[in-house]
Amino acid sequence: MAGTLQFLMSSAGIGEDADHTHVMAICLFVTLLCACIVLGHLLEENRWMNESITALILGFCTGIIVLVTSNGSSSHILQFNEELFFIYLLPPIIFNAGFQVKKKQFFQNFVAIMLFGVVGVFISFAIISAGSSFVFPKLGLGKLLIQDYLALGTIFSATDSVCTLQVLSQDDTPLLYSLVFGEGVVNDATSVVLFRAVQKLTFDDFTSMEVLQMSGSFFYLFFSSTVLGIATGLLSAYIIKTLYFARHSTDREIAIMTLMAYLSYILAELLFLSGILTVFFCGIVMSHYTWHNVTESSRVTTKHAFATMSFIAETFIFLYVGMDALDLDKWKMATTTVGQSFGLFSTLLVLILVGRAAFVFPLSALSNYMCKSANTKIGIRQQIIIWWAGLMRGAVSIALAFNQFTISGDAKNPEFAAAITTTIGVVLFSTVVFGMLTKPLIHWLLPPHLRSYISDTSDPPSPKDVNFINDFNVPLLLDSNQRGNSGFFSGIVSRHSSLGMLLAAPTSYIHDLWRSFDDSYMRPVFGGRGFVPYIPGSLTIAEEDEHHPSHF
Amino acid sequence: MAGTLQFLMSSAGIGEDADHTHVMAICLFVTLLCACIVLGHLLEENRWMNESITALILGFCTGIIVLVTSNGSSSHILQFNEELFFIYLLPPIIFNAGFQVKKKQFFQNFVAIMLFGVVGVFISFAIISAGSSFVFPKLGLGKLLIQDYLALGTIFSATDSVCTLQVLSQDDTPLLYSLVFGEGVVNDATSVVLFRAVQKLTFDDFTSMEVLQMSGSFFYLFFSSTVLGIATGLLSAYIIKTLYFARHSTDREIAIMTLMAYLSYILAELLFLSGILTVFFCGIVMSHYTWHNVTESSRVTTKHAFATMSFIAETFIFLYVGMDALDLDKWKMATTTVGQSFGLFSTLLVLILVGRAAFVFPLSALSNYMCKSANTKIGIRQQIIIWWAGLMRGAVSIALAFNQFTISGDAKNPEFAAAITTTIGVVLFSTVVFGMLTKPLIHWLLPPHLRSYISDTSDPPSPKDVNFINDFNVPLLLDSNQRGNSGFFSGIVSRHSSLGMLLAAPTSYIHDLWRSFDDSYMRPVFGGRGFVPYIPGSLTIAEEDEHHPSHF
Repeated sequence: MAGTLQFLMSSAGIGEDADHTHVMAICLFVTLLCACIVLGHLLEENRWMNESITALILGFCTGIIVLVTSNGSSSHILQFNEELFFIYLLPPIIFNAGFQVKKKQFFQNFVAIMLFGVVGVFISFAIISAGSSFVFPKLGLGKLLIQDYLALGTIFSATDSVCTLQVLSQDDTPLLYSLVFGEGVVNDATSVVLFRAVQKLTFDDFTSMEVLQMSGSFFYLFFSSTVLGIATGLLSAYIIKTLYFARHSTDREIAIMTLMAYLSYILAELLFLSGILTVFFCGIVMSHYTWHNVTESSRVTTKHAFATMSFIAETFIFLYVGMDALDLDKWKMATTTVGQSFGLFSTLLVLILVGRAAFVFPLSALSNYMCKSANTKIGIRQQIIIWWAGLMRGAVSIALAFNQFTISGDAKNPEFAAAITTTIGVVLFSTVVFGMLTKPLIHWLLPPHLRSYISDTSDPPSPKDVNFINDFNVPLLLDSNQRGNSGFFSGIVSRHSSLGMLLAAPTSYIHDLWRSFDDSYMRPVFGGRGFVPYIPGSLTIAEEDEHHPSHF
Repeated sequence: MAGTLQFLMSSAGIGEDADHTHVMAICLFVTLLCACIVLGHLLEENRWMNESITALILGFCTGIIVLVTSNGSSSHILQFNEELFFIYLLPPIIFNAGFQVKKKQFFQNFVAIMLFGVVGVFISFAIISAGSSFVFPKLGLGKLLIQDYLALGTIFSATDSVCTLQVLSQDDTPLLYSLVFGEGVVNDATSVVLFRAVQKLTFDDFTSMEVLQMSGSFFYLFFSSTVLGIATGLLSAYIIKTLYFARHSTDREIAIMTLMAYLSYILAELLFLSGILTVFFCGIVMSHYTWHNVTESSRVTTKHAFATMSFIAETFIFLYVGMDALDLDKWKMATTTVGQSFGLFSTLLVLILVGRAAFVFPLSALSNYMCKSANTKIGIRQQIIIWWAGLMRGAVSIALAFNQFTISGDAKNPEFAAAITTTIGVVLFSTVVFGMLTKPLIHWLLPPHLRSYISDTSDPPSPKDVNFINDFNVPLLLDSNQRGNSGFFSGIVSRHSSLGMLLAAPTSYIHDLWRSFDDSYMRPVFGGRGFVPYIPGSLTIAEEDEHHPSHF
């Protein structure tokens, strides 16, 4: 491939200009993406590999070939581009995560997820920052400031939710999936927010007042990002319910859903909030309301189109990271010796391992203590898997590292170059080595005959042949009597002591409360399940052609 | 919106940096796209408006607001970007056109389409080039070279297929739709190819040998682009048929189809071919083979996802052109007086009107003479509509004008700036004024009671409530006996005189020939209709969840 490219580059006179180089890069990437998908399919049954690792390795090999054929000159074209990552690749992944997540399990484990995703990041951040600021100077890297060490702490606290999800199955291990996945999303958001907070710190007059301010702005960001996501999702549901009630137009519906989801992300970024959190909650709200207000064809299309977009973006990121590993300029600029590099690399790996262990086990115990219901208990084997599955570092780490240690792609000094190359090394190693070991580890710790016992949930796993629409139904513990009640609280504040219920099963109580509120106030305005009557077996895919014939 | 933006821009300290400006531009565009879709829906029944005009006007108004609130400084952010247009926005539109076109009608009118799309462009090109080189110097624009006039000829020969299609209905006027649409695609490709040929001309030693070379390279481009598109389409069909025969995975299928369609375009651009033609034929082949090899969910998803992508890209282009109209730098640089500007503008409009009339009417007569079958006869009323519906100029014209008259977005001299502003003026005027008059004109020339008589086709218009899959079935004039034949030519070279058939109805004969070839050699290798048995009423949308449960 690269040989052909070089041939083309040299033979075509116009090939040298910037435009054509760009076309060539796109062509190379699209070809590699196709190759990844085909290879990923062929390797699907393989126990050690997954699509991320395939893409990473394929990208790495292509990087070598490009580097060799271009005599080291073209490594710079393929340099990691923060903007591309944060503005175009990350949003579809996180949105799809919110859109397809099983809401019931997510909210059932909400406490544990928040503990891991928020408190956990702070613990890991403290350990990695402290550890690296203690060890790095001894390895000869004296020029890093306290701010850089704090940045390193956040960079290596961001787990890679993309890769993690490929090894866990929502159907086989629902509790683990929900925990690790939920943590991944919240963790990404926390890391990015914390990273921004660290970058804004001024260390000249570092008072406790400032720490208080920082925590204040942190919670403000968390809260307002969530509210923005929910608001955008509800707006989309309202628009589609109001405008398209009588005459459905599939193309417009899909376009509105896609654009408003993206709008929530980009609006959050514009307002300096956390786009990741916003688009995640927007996805949840859209799957709960908007998705039920559209035609059958739109439902099928959005479900698969969003998943496909996310899939392509994921594969693209891993290809990109793989190709970017050979950023020769950085490697040349980092004046560290092999020993030093190895020291930095292994220090960080150890700190990541310790930093994650330091919060997974204590916080699991705390979560078990707080939530007494049997189906959210986290066993010791599961704790080990949670610890291990969150060790991988990915594109978020690289993006943050580039943001901290480069100015428009170029490292400022050898120390910064070393920080970048070490980050790339850690990401590659953790994704490939830790990633490869995850599936066997799960198999060893939770053999299939144990899974059904350990990872139980209150609802039976849905049979595979059931229509996928059931995934979105979320029966949510309500019986038909309660659903029939239309007055807020009427199903809850009944003869049963509500205080007693709160103490016995807080999650379930809050959930019932929400359910009543949803039925009484939200659904009448925003639609949602049951808005468009769905009769199984009578899919009328052609219905929108009737209403919108002129648009080809 | 713009007020909020300005507020944000000034209040947020970091708002000034390039990254954030970019985020703001994206946010503005996404918001406007949503607004366009909602407005377009509300105005759907309106006789004068269509989505293109709505987007154009909305973009124009936003441009004014942005310009006013930013005191004329931010007009440059929104400048037309050729790369964005040719690499990202045009491919989905043309691919979707090929994917959703009714193949039967397209190939039935192939001769007429090629006459209009190829010969017509040359006639229009000659008239506009000659006319402008005659009139422009008299208006005081002396500095344009012969090459610039030839470029102007190609720029204003490119009709706007996007806008045109919104006013014609594939169901109400199938013959007109097929002709105007087919011409639009071929015309775009011809114009781009011709434009490139003109740019490469050296006028120092302009010999007849060179003209011959130019025509040679023109036909080479046409042929090789088509072959590349067909080859990529067939490859995608083959990959999906071979790899996913037993276990279908919807997300991967959709990803492969999307990526390979895009690959065909970008590969053609890389090889200096015409990406438009390539991706158009790739779309046709994909809808004929690949689309039938995938799961039911993939079919629904690709059909709607491609249409939605195309829809968003179209709306985006018109918004963009509308906003770009107020490119103050160009207007200031163009030192032409109001009288001169008006002279240029009206000269070009007249030349466009004459240039199109000069080929539509003679070539229609020629086509009527060549194809004697009643159902491809083009009546005089239809000729007028074809003439009128192709008068609109759009984004292709603007993109080519920027390519010819600017260096990285800035005009080289006042004459070039005037050429750009005149192009923008012609595009706006023709889209809004000509576009608004098209629907009423069709209504006047072809009142509904006449349409069924005038625009007859050999097959009855499909009832609206039929499953959309029928759109892709393309019964293609074959009865069940012929389909049953498996030997090549066996259905054709039979007792009936094949020569007699050729003389009587050449299109139908070629079509039957193709059909036999398709059944005997192509379908066994590349799949196609009937590959995955389709049983109406038994849509198994959940089937891929069974095969690919781990991917969320």
